[in-house]
Amino acid sequence: MNNFTFYSPTYFAFGKDEENKVGALVKRFGGSKVLIHYGGGSVVRSGLLGRVKASLETEGLPYVELGGVKPNPRSGLVYEGIELCKREGVDFILAVGGGSTIDSSKAIAAGVVYEGDFWDFYSGKTIEKALPVGTILTIAAAGSEGSPDSVITNEDGMYKRGASGDAIRPKFSILNPALTQTLPPYQTACGITDIMAHLYERYLTNTKEVEVTDRLIEALLLTMIHEGPRVIENPDNYDARANIMWAGMMAHNNAVGVGRSQDWNSHNIEHELSALYDCAHGAGLAVTMPAVFHYVMNHDVMRFAKVAVRVWGCQMDFDHPEVTAKAGIEALRNFLISIGMPKNFAELGAKEEDIPKLVDVLVNGNGRSGSISGFVSLNAEDCANIYRLMV
Amino acid sequence: MNNFTFYSPTYFAFGKDEENKVGALVKRFGGSKVLIHYGGGSVVRSGLLGRVKASLETEGLPYVELGGVKPNPRSGLVYEGIELCKREGVDFILAVGGGSTIDSSKAIAAGVVYEGDFWDFYSGKTIEKALPVGTILTIAAAGSEGSPDSVITNEDGMYKRGASGDAIRPKFSILNPALTQTLPPYQTACGITDIMAHLYERYLTNTKEVEVTDRLIEALLLTMIHEGPRVIENPDNYDARANIMWAGMMAHNNAVGVGRSQDWNSHNIEHELSALYDCAHGAGLAVTMPAVFHYVMNHDVMRFAKVAVRVWGCQMDFDHPEVTAKAGIEALRNFLISIGMPKNFAELGAKEEDIPKLVDVLVNGNGRSGSISGFVSLNAEDCANIYRLMV
Repeated sequence: MNNFTFYSPTYFAFGKDEENKVGALVKRFGGSKVLIHYGGGSVVRSGLLGRVKASLETEGLPYVELGGVKPNPRSGLVYEGIELCKREGVDFILAVGGGSTIDSSKAIAAGVVYEGDFWDFYSGKTIEKALPVGTILTIAAAGSEGSPDSVITNEDGMYKRGASGDAIRPKFSILNPALTQTLPPYQTACGITDIMAHLYERYLTNTKEVEVTDRLIEALLLTMIHEGPRVIENPDNYDARANIMWAGMMAHNNAVGVGRSQDWNSHNIEHELSALYDCAHGAGLAVTMPAVFHYVMNHDVMRFAKVAVRVWGCQMDFDHPEVTAKAGIEALRNFLISIGMPKNFAELGAKEEDIPKLVDVLVNGNGRSGSISGFVSLNAEDCANIYRLMV
Repeated sequence: MNNFTFYSPTYFAFGKDEENKVGALVKRFGGSKVLIHYGGGSVVRSGLLGRVKASLETEGLPYVELGGVKPNPRSGLVYEGIELCKREGVDFILAVGGGSTIDSSKAIAAGVVYEGDFWDFYSGKTIEKALPVGTILTIAAAGSEGSPDSVITNEDGMYKRGASGDAIRPKFSILNPALTQTLPPYQTACGITDIMAHLYERYLTNTKEVEVTDRLIEALLLTMIHEGPRVIENPDNYDARANIMWAGMMAHNNAVGVGRSQDWNSHNIEHELSALYDCAHGAGLAVTMPAVFHYVMNHDVMRFAKVAVRVWGCQMDFDHPEVTAKAGIEALRNFLISIGMPKNFAELGAKEEDIPKLVDVLVNGNGRSGSISGFVSLNAEDCANIYRLMV
């Protein structure tokens, strides 16, 4: 196991009706004027936004609003949010929504207290300082509610990049599984896929002797395999939603990923798809992961055999471990298809002829020089081969 | 799943040589004069105390020392520490040792800023305020490095009680697995047992639909079963020590225990043994757990069958689940014996004739009125029956 530091100071309030505590929590964590940041109309229509405002008003907390966050959140709205906060003297950012809204809120929080262009942070600069952020999560997926990360799409070229820093870890996150019950099955399945991807990206390691984190990752994957189909079958299943929601946080606050190298190439390869086609990140991952895993499997067959046996219940083929390894990847693919995820470029709306463009932005864009690193280092040819496996 | 809050703001620095960062970490978390609190001579002999002092001196941090913490830490030394800190103007408590030293440090930290008798907190009062505490852990066991809990033995009657509060969660904890390599096998095994007990106490729940935490607890138990024998066979196995150390923290910061009722009756029943006979807490738990589990098994046979199958690899007897449930308890007992733990009262140094006394303090002492509650509520007769199963 490698040396590491782990710091996850977010206060989590989990369960039914917990969003009504939001005013008190903003106050507890030092907010006196709030930006409520959200996406589309669903938080308005569901009455959630009204309850949030009521709770802030009860605590005497003034607020301004900025809606309009889109999936794969854009740099333009971040600039707008930064200006708004500066103009209005906002000192606390409250995200009401999913990972896109939270990531956009984190970008605003960092940008408000920074002299330069906030995009510096998405070009490699660590975020050292930010306004406090709180979240009310409405979809279990990105894990942004407990992470120090944010991903934004730059509209000048349509490419996604990430930024990171303990300063943007949410001060509090309110997780009410009931708020996710109104999600359509497709979005729910996208969230499930994203959570499973966060687990696989951590599972694919070159670090030896990491049994504790292997087992914890497997535990969360097993949870998703058990609860995923239940919630797709019955969207109102509160308990299945609750198990998925805590698994989603645990999958990405890094408690299960410490002390080991991680992969993140499936995310990197997918990011270009959702940036170019504006498809759902989870849907893109569903197509990307099996392709990447088949391509890199021979780098460590036993690791893929291990997840196949322990998580997917495959029988170990002791004479031909690669048979087991492959069976595990196919089990993942079939699972994702079974919950309604796309299986190839066509179903995703991606085009084979764009592969050269995708590869170029992927391996040469924004500071990279010809390859992406992770479990296996992948050059332009590797990435093109992987994209072709998805066709 | 039940509603819950989860808050674990401790900063963890994990790995080789991390103790040399202690001065910088004390400073980061606001300390300007430090009490170094520790147990016996091993931290002196190993050179650890010297390295700690050097790191504090490098940062220009003055300190005073208080050694002498014993296993099952005593109230007398806590009073002494409180007086010392008040006299010397200490504003940061640094625990260098295991769970006993950390628990004693937490008690001092709470006592220094409290007008009344610190024992109030161990009689049910929540700790709202305390000096900041940091830790350098030297044994993987109690989980106190990441928990809001402390257990102290009152010398006026020799009984153990716990106190709790977010204010005593360590600000930072330094976990260097190499520091645990000098531990004798017996102490190492006691630590392994304590960690497994923290997991079983959480596993035994009456809350339904808690797959995510069930799976996480099982993951940590599987880790202990894999790594425990490796470290007993080779105490210098750094990687096995590292996996156990992170499992020990994760077992008790409650990330794997949220949203579910928990048991803690094995701990309650054991506490009277270590208080009266001054045996190691882990050794006491090794004798206590199988007895408690056999006694309460029929309350939820399927839960015991589940842990038997998923963790101990028992075959499920679908016609007679109780056979599987029992096999799992026996597998736990045999595992604990295999790593060198005692199996009965005699090996623990406990006496059958003391059972009435043990039961009386257990169910009537310090605010209890005739029973202890948990997975199953146990009255005096139940507790006597359980102690008799240990003879």
